[in-house]
Amino acid sequence: MSHRIQPRTLKGFRDVPPAQMIPREALIATAKKVYESYGFSPIDTPALEYTEILLGKGGAESDKQLYRFEDNGGRDVALRFDLTVPLARFAAQHVGTLGTPFKRYHVGPVWRGENTQRGRYREFLQFDFDTIGTTDVVADIETVLVVHDLFEALQVGSFTIRVNNRKILNGLLERLDLADQSVVVLRALDKLPKVGPEAVHAELIEIAGASEPIATEIIEFAGLTGTNEELIDALGPLVAGSEIGASGVDELASLIEGTTAAGAVAERVRVDVSIARGLDYYTGTILETFMDELPDIGSLCSGGRYDDLANLYTNVPLPGIGASLGVDRLLAALEELGLTEGRTTPADVLVAYFEASHRDHYLALARQLRGKGIKVELYPEPKKLGTQLKYADRRGHRFAVIIGATEWDAGTVQIKDLADGGSQTVPLDDLAPTLLAAIGGRP
Amino acid sequence: MSHRIQPRTLKGFRDVPPAQMIPREALIATAKKVYESYGFSPIDTPALEYTEILLGKGGAESDKQLYRFEDNGGRDVALRFDLTVPLARFAAQHVGTLGTPFKRYHVGPVWRGENTQRGRYREFLQFDFDTIGTTDVVADIETVLVVHDLFEALQVGSFTIRVNNRKILNGLLERLDLADQSVVVLRALDKLPKVGPEAVHAELIEIAGASEPIATEIIEFAGLTGTNEELIDALGPLVAGSEIGASGVDELASLIEGTTAAGAVAERVRVDVSIARGLDYYTGTILETFMDELPDIGSLCSGGRYDDLANLYTNVPLPGIGASLGVDRLLAALEELGLTEGRTTPADVLVAYFEASHRDHYLALARQLRGKGIKVELYPEPKKLGTQLKYADRRGHRFAVIIGATEWDAGTVQIKDLADGGSQTVPLDDLAPTLLAAIGGRP
Repeated sequence: MSHRIQPRTLKGFRDVPPAQMIPREALIATAKKVYESYGFSPIDTPALEYTEILLGKGGAESDKQLYRFEDNGGRDVALRFDLTVPLARFAAQHVGTLGTPFKRYHVGPVWRGENTQRGRYREFLQFDFDTIGTTDVVADIETVLVVHDLFEALQVGSFTIRVNNRKILNGLLERLDLADQSVVVLRALDKLPKVGPEAVHAELIEIAGASEPIATEIIEFAGLTGTNEELIDALGPLVAGSEIGASGVDELASLIEGTTAAGAVAERVRVDVSIARGLDYYTGTILETFMDELPDIGSLCSGGRYDDLANLYTNVPLPGIGASLGVDRLLAALEELGLTEGRTTPADVLVAYFEASHRDHYLALARQLRGKGIKVELYPEPKKLGTQLKYADRRGHRFAVIIGATEWDAGTVQIKDLADGGSQTVPLDDLAPTLLAAIGGRP
Repeated sequence: MSHRIQPRTLKGFRDVPPAQMIPREALIATAKKVYESYGFSPIDTPALEYTEILLGKGGAESDKQLYRFEDNGGRDVALRFDLTVPLARFAAQHVGTLGTPFKRYHVGPVWRGENTQRGRYREFLQFDFDTIGTTDVVADIETVLVVHDLFEALQVGSFTIRVNNRKILNGLLERLDLADQSVVVLRALDKLPKVGPEAVHAELIEIAGASEPIATEIIEFAGLTGTNEELIDALGPLVAGSEIGASGVDELASLIEGTTAAGAVAERVRVDVSIARGLDYYTGTILETFMDELPDIGSLCSGGRYDDLANLYTNVPLPGIGASLGVDRLLAALEELGLTEGRTTPADVLVAYFEASHRDHYLALARQLRGKGIKVELYPEPKKLGTQLKYADRRGHRFAVIIGATEWDAGTVQIKDLADGGSQTVPLDDLAPTLLAAIGGRP
């Protein structure tokens, strides 16, 4: 071939080879299992939407980052930048046939033409779950329970779900006569962990127009610490006289009480009044989730309650609450903690194939083992045994099954444990039970 | 809101609601399990590629159908139209670190701006598996075994995997002095089921330049019927004198022998010399898979062997064999046969919630049941019981768990079977085992 094309991926895009894909699949399977155990149903939506559906929903920055183009039919189209806006469009379009409450999960790639220097990718995976059509705090409690049970199931070590309620800050601002500045105040507070209290204090005065003592009170509010009970007790007086503030404190108290009563580990769910979330559309409960060993990696699962997700598309009120699992960020965290295996095969067993005249016997044996629930790769060529064992080492098979001409005649088989190099010879009939016992005994 | 945006999807695109998504997820899970049981590893590749990677790989028609545009960085990019070209690019790029043999599976959407009048979608799901880096017939045999075990696992009723080998037709053409017309002949034969033998006969004469008796011989060849053994015996003389033809017959014989020896149901794998496959890049074994009850829906899983998948991107020879499962077409077939359930919830049980003062008890009970492996949805609001039961009927929960104030006091619970309307009252402690027994007893 005279002209070869360089095989490469686009900047900010990447291939996911088996070593990363196997843990990703395991993570997704665990999340699905937990979401489904709570009755969330899967949906899917197109990668491409009419641009008007997506524009202006995520703010000016996400508009700029859109992969937007004209299709062959002259339509103005764009790749989705999150799964929330498509959910809003989906819910508005189908609510009549779906009915409410509607609980869905959705896993899929989203695309943002971000600056890749920040270590971000332009295509990444999100895994959302949401409950649409109810304002009852039970949905808030179950959202936190899902996150709790998910992180327990993922076995990532200790974690903390930080919860807050937007209404409390709004109540405080109402009392301080700054209610009309709530979006500005929220955005300022969202930067607290990054820029520190002094900078936020200055911003509250300069941009939100707060007086010096009021800015100080807001900063002090966001810096409150204590047990869940102490914080809830302290919040009441701070929103005194504000109906919305009082209902925020009530909801937060119910959230703590309900998650604990349902059996969540109490220390995993913490009131944190500094949690603000940058997005404008949250109206009540908000939550972020951190792995205690890696706080700097940021929130791995975030979400909250929104009054009306879909009011751009329908006049049917569609309140909801949900959260989004950052699959790629979580995988990076698991890798950093050495919690991923690095295997590049799903098969526990490699059946070596080196007596060409016995080809059909190897084929039949491998398939019999599969029928017993064992994942078995048959090496596809009668190469030297050493080559095949090196291959198994590299891929991460746990056992090699070795049968030469002598063993076929004698009806025996050698099982080699590739982790410790040990091996045992057993009758062919004992192969499946021996392997099953060894694999089942996996920690 | 004064200006509402109409919630709609693009022409040729569609939402997948739970009623269709639940069977799709089940189908994908089954296919994954079978692929992994043979040691295929998952990979993922970007939806967007440099256009030069994709152009010219699928022929003029697929070039025209590309979703192609310039990104914000001025790059000429396009959405992938299949998973095979990205595999070729991936294999060429990573073969050094991955090593061979390399067995991968890949499930994901692909995009083609097709004419939607043919009932096709512009975004659809493919699920491919391939073995790269070996020419051994063991890989061909295992490819057929995977398809066999997959369709058995899917419980779709009886099915037929039709197999052929490109080398046999090439051998025949060599004997007939038409070897240089093989692509044209293949394309003509691929239309046999659609246009019939007369039209193909005419095309062979007009376009391939065959004489009348030779066109007749080719049509007769493609029309050969018989048992696998009869056909293999008949093919030898037809390719007499052609080395490539003889090796094709040998490979086909090995394929039949190996799949049968490995325990595949013999009637499921049929030699069919009329199978041609339209794609140019196949060089040996080719296969198509049909559900016997719905032959007209076409092949549900097709593939074959290619000599060198990636020679546009690398000088490393990368022979391979694989097949692609048409997920959407298979789902349509299952729906047509009434083999999908139509449920819109993954949860078997709805816990009704109507005594607001017991909210925390309902929450705790639902979570306890989940801990025992039961998928449980808790209705999120204390609405009237009738509303909640109607909801469960609509979603497809199998059982409703009903506990009112009296039952909470007495420590009992009513289990309502939503299929037959029957109900029983049991002590609270017996709830989980009773439900597990009922759900486990599912046909």
